Amino acid sequence: MSCVFCAIVAGDAPAITVYEDDGYLAILDIRPIVRGHVLVIPKAHTVDLTDTPPDTVATMMRIGQRVARAARASELHADGNNVVVNDGEAAFQSVFHIHLHVAPRKSGDKLSFAKGLVVRRDPDREATARILRDALAVTD
Amino acid sequence: MSCVFCAIVAGDAPAITVYEDDGYLAILDIRPIVRGHVLVIPKAHTVDLTDTPPDTVATMMRIGQRVARAARASELHADGNNVVVNDGEAAFQSVFHIHLHVAPRKSGDKLSFAKGLVVRRDPDREATARILRDALAVTD
Repeated sequence: MSCVFCAIVAGDAPAITVYEDDGYLAILDIRPIVRGHVLVIPKAHTVDLTDTPPDTVATMMRIGQRVARAARASELHADGNNVVVNDGEAAFQSVFHIHLHVAPRKSGDKLSFAKGLVVRRDPDREATARILRDALAVTD
Repeated sequence: MSCVFCAIVAGDAPAITVYEDDGYLAILDIRPIVRGHVLVIPKAHTVDLTDTPPDTVATMMRIGQRVARAARASELHADGNNVVVNDGEAAFQSVFHIHLHVAPRKSGDKLSFAKGLVVRRDPDREATARILRDALAVTD
């Protein structure tokens, strides 16, 4: 299996899950730009906005909104979020299984955000995931 | 009226429209990062992902996908798109009426993309809009 997200969906590759339902998975980005950087992934494999059904794109976004709200309500105390689909390699897509990024932001974090683009590391991923899961349970 | 997007929706401020239906408007960004940079805007005023109904967020994204597909199919010859909601001032939101960015990308455009973040100018906005409208008419 050559798609890492399909391997995660199948349970054949590790990931830290924030949310799961029958059709979708939200996991921590393994190389987070900020703490709480989440990827929302449809379980069915499609590549980008060209081949993904509109209903799937819409549902991915609904889950992204819930994660974004949870990030604000959570102990991460996000003041906002960048919610992004990079559609195609030309647009910085690096895994060719469609996904939506939710990157929680804090006021005045521009420098740490820029640093995060390079460093991309979370020292306590399990704690981050627990915080988001707890917030989702309350806000949903 | 203090919200520029509400003024555009009301017809009291100018904009170049790419798409319109009863509830949504897609217009050219007045300060485009790339050629064909479009904003999808719900006509009803809400601020960000915190107060916008999930159905509205989902529909905004469906329209964004259509614009992204049109940009690829169009004479702009996009190879991909960044599709983005900046949720909150901390996340670079600058107009506080929710909107979705669709920024068409081309392979190898990283330098012009970086330049676009500063220059933000399209020398022929009317032609750009016509190209996207024509592509939407064909791809939809």
